Amino acid sequence: MLKKIIFLGLLNFTHTALIAQTKTTPIYLDESKPVEDRIKDALSRMTVEEKVRMLHAQSKFSSAGVPRLGIPEFWTTDGPHGVRAEVQWDEWDQAGWTNDSIIAYPALTALSATWNKQMSWNYGKAIGEEARYRKKDVLLGPGVNIYRTPLNGRNFEYMGEDPYLTSIMVVPYIKGVQSNGVATSVKHYALNNQEMFRHTSNVKLDDRALYEIYLPPFKAAVTEGDSWTIMGAYDKYKDQYASQNQYLLNDILKGEWGYKGVVVSDWGAVNNTEQAIKNGLDMEFGSWTNGLSAGTSNAYDNYYLAKPYLDLIKSGKVGTKELDDKVTRILRLAYKTTMNKNKPFGSVASEEHIAVAKQIGEEGIVLLKNDNNILPIDANKVKSIAVIGENAIKMMTVGGGSSSLKAKYETLPLDGIKSRFGKQTEVKYARGYVGDPGGEYNGVKSGQNLEDKRSEKELFNEAIALAKSADVVIFVGGLNKADFQDSEGNDRKSYNLPYNQDKLIQELAKANKNLVVSLVSGNAVAMPWIKDVPSIVQTWYLGSEAGNSLASVLAGDANPSGKLPFTFPVKLEDNSAHQLGEYPGNKEELAAGKGKDQQNPINITYNEGILVGYRWHDTKKIKPLFSFGHGLSYTTFEFGKVKADKTTISQNDKITFTFTVKNVGNVAGAEVAQLYITDVKSSVLRPTKELKGFEKVYLKPGEEKEVKITVDKAALSYFDADKHAWVAEPGDFEALIGNSSDNIKTKIKFTLK
Amino acid sequence: MLKKIIFLGLLNFTHTALIAQTKTTPIYLDESKPVEDRIKDALSRMTVEEKVRMLHAQSKFSSAGVPRLGIPEFWTTDGPHGVRAEVQWDEWDQAGWTNDSIIAYPALTALSATWNKQMSWNYGKAIGEEARYRKKDVLLGPGVNIYRTPLNGRNFEYMGEDPYLTSIMVVPYIKGVQSNGVATSVKHYALNNQEMFRHTSNVKLDDRALYEIYLPPFKAAVTEGDSWTIMGAYDKYKDQYASQNQYLLNDILKGEWGYKGVVVSDWGAVNNTEQAIKNGLDMEFGSWTNGLSAGTSNAYDNYYLAKPYLDLIKSGKVGTKELDDKVTRILRLAYKTTMNKNKPFGSVASEEHIAVAKQIGEEGIVLLKNDNNILPIDANKVKSIAVIGENAIKMMTVGGGSSSLKAKYETLPLDGIKSRFGKQTEVKYARGYVGDPGGEYNGVKSGQNLEDKRSEKELFNEAIALAKSADVVIFVGGLNKADFQDSEGNDRKSYNLPYNQDKLIQELAKANKNLVVSLVSGNAVAMPWIKDVPSIVQTWYLGSEAGNSLASVLAGDANPSGKLPFTFPVKLEDNSAHQLGEYPGNKEELAAGKGKDQQNPINITYNEGILVGYRWHDTKKIKPLFSFGHGLSYTTFEFGKVKADKTTISQNDKITFTFTVKNVGNVAGAEVAQLYITDVKSSVLRPTKELKGFEKVYLKPGEEKEVKITVDKAALSYFDADKHAWVAEPGDFEALIGNSSDNIKTKIKFTLK
Repeated sequence: MLKKIIFLGLLNFTHTALIAQTKTTPIYLDESKPVEDRIKDALSRMTVEEKVRMLHAQSKFSSAGVPRLGIPEFWTTDGPHGVRAEVQWDEWDQAGWTNDSIIAYPALTALSATWNKQMSWNYGKAIGEEARYRKKDVLLGPGVNIYRTPLNGRNFEYMGEDPYLTSIMVVPYIKGVQSNGVATSVKHYALNNQEMFRHTSNVKLDDRALYEIYLPPFKAAVTEGDSWTIMGAYDKYKDQYASQNQYLLNDILKGEWGYKGVVVSDWGAVNNTEQAIKNGLDMEFGSWTNGLSAGTSNAYDNYYLAKPYLDLIKSGKVGTKELDDKVTRILRLAYKTTMNKNKPFGSVASEEHIAVAKQIGEEGIVLLKNDNNILPIDANKVKSIAVIGENAIKMMTVGGGSSSLKAKYETLPLDGIKSRFGKQTEVKYARGYVGDPGGEYNGVKSGQNLEDKRSEKELFNEAIALAKSADVVIFVGGLNKADFQDSEGNDRKSYNLPYNQDKLIQELAKANKNLVVSLVSGNAVAMPWIKDVPSIVQTWYLGSEAGNSLASVLAGDANPSGKLPFTFPVKLEDNSAHQLGEYPGNKEELAAGKGKDQQNPINITYNEGILVGYRWHDTKKIKPLFSFGHGLSYTTFEFGKVKADKTTISQNDKITFTFTVKNVGNVAGAEVAQLYITDVKSSVLRPTKELKGFEKVYLKPGEEKEVKITVDKAALSYFDADKHAWVAEPGDFEALIGNSSDNIKTKIKFTLK
Repeated sequence: MLKKIIFLGLLNFTHTALIAQTKTTPIYLDESKPVEDRIKDALSRMTVEEKVRMLHAQSKFSSAGVPRLGIPEFWTTDGPHGVRAEVQWDEWDQAGWTNDSIIAYPALTALSATWNKQMSWNYGKAIGEEARYRKKDVLLGPGVNIYRTPLNGRNFEYMGEDPYLTSIMVVPYIKGVQSNGVATSVKHYALNNQEMFRHTSNVKLDDRALYEIYLPPFKAAVTEGDSWTIMGAYDKYKDQYASQNQYLLNDILKGEWGYKGVVVSDWGAVNNTEQAIKNGLDMEFGSWTNGLSAGTSNAYDNYYLAKPYLDLIKSGKVGTKELDDKVTRILRLAYKTTMNKNKPFGSVASEEHIAVAKQIGEEGIVLLKNDNNILPIDANKVKSIAVIGENAIKMMTVGGGSSSLKAKYETLPLDGIKSRFGKQTEVKYARGYVGDPGGEYNGVKSGQNLEDKRSEKELFNEAIALAKSADVVIFVGGLNKADFQDSEGNDRKSYNLPYNQDKLIQELAKANKNLVVSLVSGNAVAMPWIKDVPSIVQTWYLGSEAGNSLASVLAGDANPSGKLPFTFPVKLEDNSAHQLGEYPGNKEELAAGKGKDQQNPINITYNEGILVGYRWHDTKKIKPLFSFGHGLSYTTFEFGKVKADKTTISQNDKITFTFTVKNVGNVAGAEVAQLYITDVKSSVLRPTKELKGFEKVYLKPGEEKEVKITVDKAALSYFDADKHAWVAEPGDFEALIGNSSDNIKTKIKFTLK
């Protein structure tokens, strides 16, 4: 039997007794006992006050344990792309520590664009190690809200428009993080698909769109990824805030999906004690505190799940069934994290972490266009490179909201290019434009730079002149992490590039035909200059290794293999939410001033239903600027004809498709073979095709590999709202194999009985 | 073989491969490997920069690990009586956290006064659990500097004047703390026996006094207690600062005693890079930083063992032998603390902790005098109690320097008395005097209290009037934790009680013959009123349970069993340091202004040599006010005649003394049987007697127990400086058994061959 050292009894002590005596370890501390038994034992020892104290924050990012019983505190941290700097106890300002700088990893759009599960595992493992070393127990991410509009300021944190791709990519991330004894908190559950009105809107959509488009990544995260926590969202659904929502939390998450983990609120997403008690929330964070109010020793006692809950229990108005369930879940989390003695120690900025950041950047970069094979740039042949654009010198690890980081370092694009090409090639720089004046550039606050004081015209002309003088021009622009760009809290105001970049790019294209446009963004943008620009690279926000990853792709050290995780429409109106749905909300209500505060929420109806992204473009035959799944390579791949292992399958059967992919070019590279399913004839509207499988194939020059992808009924099904069930209608289906949603190479029919 | 999950290789990855592969765990993370092998492996992976970074602080209380390798940081904390509140990164101000209040335990003088090793273990275990729960790796204590003068402002943190008692009591404390995977840092090594001139003095003493009086507790702490760290002191010895001292650290600690642990500097005790490198210091803390200096990202790079050390290594002026030795020691510490996966989780303010604090208080309180059996107070008989004195309402957990605490609560003496007696007895309070105006009283800053605005005379008269009206008067006074009282950084200015208390006590004795004087202090004080006060209780600083412990003893719920760990001289001049030695330093140098800064240190010569405390009083026949080992009980004990198991012993032999102790009174109680050894005839000066054994015996009324105490040659030896060895001279010795150093009950002669 396990023993532990205890205090001796008192006055009957004799000096000859042992100083350390032993007694049986209590069950809740006994690692040999089943976790659920340990939880019951811990619960039985806790006072109701101690239980309530576990349900809410004690500081900006931590919550209380049970000090008396030795149950540790929880320390949560932003965010999905790197572990946030320490903040003060009850203020958002940084605490001024010097041990909290970390590796910034590529934003999740870049990870998704790798279409590589291994990258997702590597990412999760690495960021989880950094969280663990920093003594964090819960990492507040990843984010898997579906990309519905290119204006959403927070798309860069998410994994694109496709529920299947997102579901596949999120699972290894979660497992990687949690292998460190650090929980993920998949977010924001659910329907927080835009920043504008995020606190003041009520989302309306049909159940089919909810189940087919918006829920799958969350379901995968909790049922396949086993994310130990999940974060509720800010918006309302069915007129209840998502973080205290009967339908989303109790009926679906904890009911249909059988979730045993912890629901945490988004920071400040709780608004009502009774709903928070009854509708499935477990932990409340970030509610507003006005410092220490008079007469309280702790501002956090005013939280909805703090004293107000305790008062309801003590007055007998509310029982303790929900309380015990919440604490049970929190203790379950504790045994996996804070009380898990087998967890590793973690590490920060190891060589592996840096390699992971760089490689995900390289694999995530999407070569959108490459006419005349301008890329890769041969340093031995090109004598001069003009680098133009503010984003070549702008730190992107700072800003963007809660995912803002204190990175150990950030290799800027200009530095990466200089470092890669500078020995052989002259690299000159011109800024070309000045972006958001509140921003930080190259570590210097904007407004303190010489350039900021020069006229727009002056910067513009200097850039054009430089472009004319160089062999190759690399324009590094796009969006940034300033407010109303790719940033939490607000949406973009326009689909076009900001800061007059469109005009600058247009003129650069005239000045030099060897123009590469490198777009730093987490969103699609309009490209009115597309016909005149031969080479376009979508480079995302790549974190600490941003400049190195970019330079590596530009030089051809890494052959680009990223594929778009969302569609680039030609114009905003081509997007379904903007054409059919409501954005930023119901127009009449908008005109009437709704959405300005929580008392007057605005409705946002997703009229486009399931037709999101390529599902919309395909079905409505609206040609996109760049399609979902698109991405070029420096080599060429050939697809062999697809075969199936059967022509007919039953409802419980599986079918395997086999085809070859061959590298017929001169350099090694990787192709993402994408499997889409078409329901040839259906009683209900089905998208023209839907992604149901993919595999990234790495091939040396001349090499050929056979790829097998197996699907079952799930890949053929739609969600029947009336039956509240997934239904695969018997009949003909087609399996389409391509290297993009708009470039199908081979296809085959099969029949479901 | 142990395996761990790693990142896959890169471009040769194929999708069919496992996401998590395994490779061999590196040796430094492999728990199945011997620690010394793990250390060597870790060392082999570290850069010289990483090694140097481990040698010094990165904030007020933490030091860096190796983030890249996942070797955690160290978090140290004050202090010996409770875990200090969180402070800011690079400021002493509190960080404003709300999770950092703890149980304040009795100061170490009170622990020492219990003469009970079990109490010491309980104390260490409890405070260690609190440190562990607070995620601290090194507890900066206990303090074992020998009590040389009653003026030393920090005596309250130490364990008295006797090297044997301190040695015995310190060991279980260390083991208790370290059972939590939290290191102790026994301090302040060595010769920091006063606060005045602590940074600017050079201590001179003969080797015999060094080895017999001042070193034994440190030796016991590291050789028997295995304290994983030890803290160097501020003062100089042999003209080298103690924290970078060849003799103390290399020759004695790491040489003679074979210490394998870590030497940390006291905060700001390092002054010279080369000495810090070569003279045995391992970690530097608290050196002055002037915020972030221009051009450095980290003020701590300016530490003596930071960039200056790195520069010496890089320039080739210094090798890396010392560096590797220091890092080896630090890694050894890591495997016992931060990287010890088997450590418990700790807890704060458990029922056991509160019981430990209360019981140590009860057992440590010393009943100095109890004429007419005024104590205990029978609540059923006494109708009214007058509580008088500021210390009855003064928080003592705040103040005193680095041991100041943010206690969860502190039961003040008045509250403890009211709580115990209030139901049956009328308890009234008068303050009587106002102490230090900078202090905090009953949670209220002084100056905001009504009393502070009343005249001294008014308060005095009110107290006398109240005393006249009551059945019993309990005066609660003494010193406090204000500057120049019992407080770090300065010494007391006078041996007398401050704030005119002597006059107040004298008048109270006239006003009411049933006067109990309860002295709150960590030091001896003059008692000019002693003849007129029937009952005196020495109550120390007792922490969170102070008022409850005191009330428990006053009521007789606990029968006092504490014994003085130091002598109370009648007057200051009766103390050997003040009569023979130098205090606060050499008088001529003092007159010449020496000691004002580090460039002009003052010499302090310990002319009294080994004649410290009772060794001095006994030998010189100077009757003390209260002797070392003194302490009364509410019952009476009788000692039987001592017997020995032999009459003659050889140098390698042991001798056992046996005697009985019987409780011949009416209540249960405990007596401390004390064994002193006298060398009847010696070629060198020996103290009249020296404590060499004790046992605390718990006895019911009428109960008798047999006590056996065994000693060997060590108990008979003195340190021969010429031979640099312990010598026991053949001849006659006497074993004296008593319940105080001045109350020997029985004795027996024996002969050493």
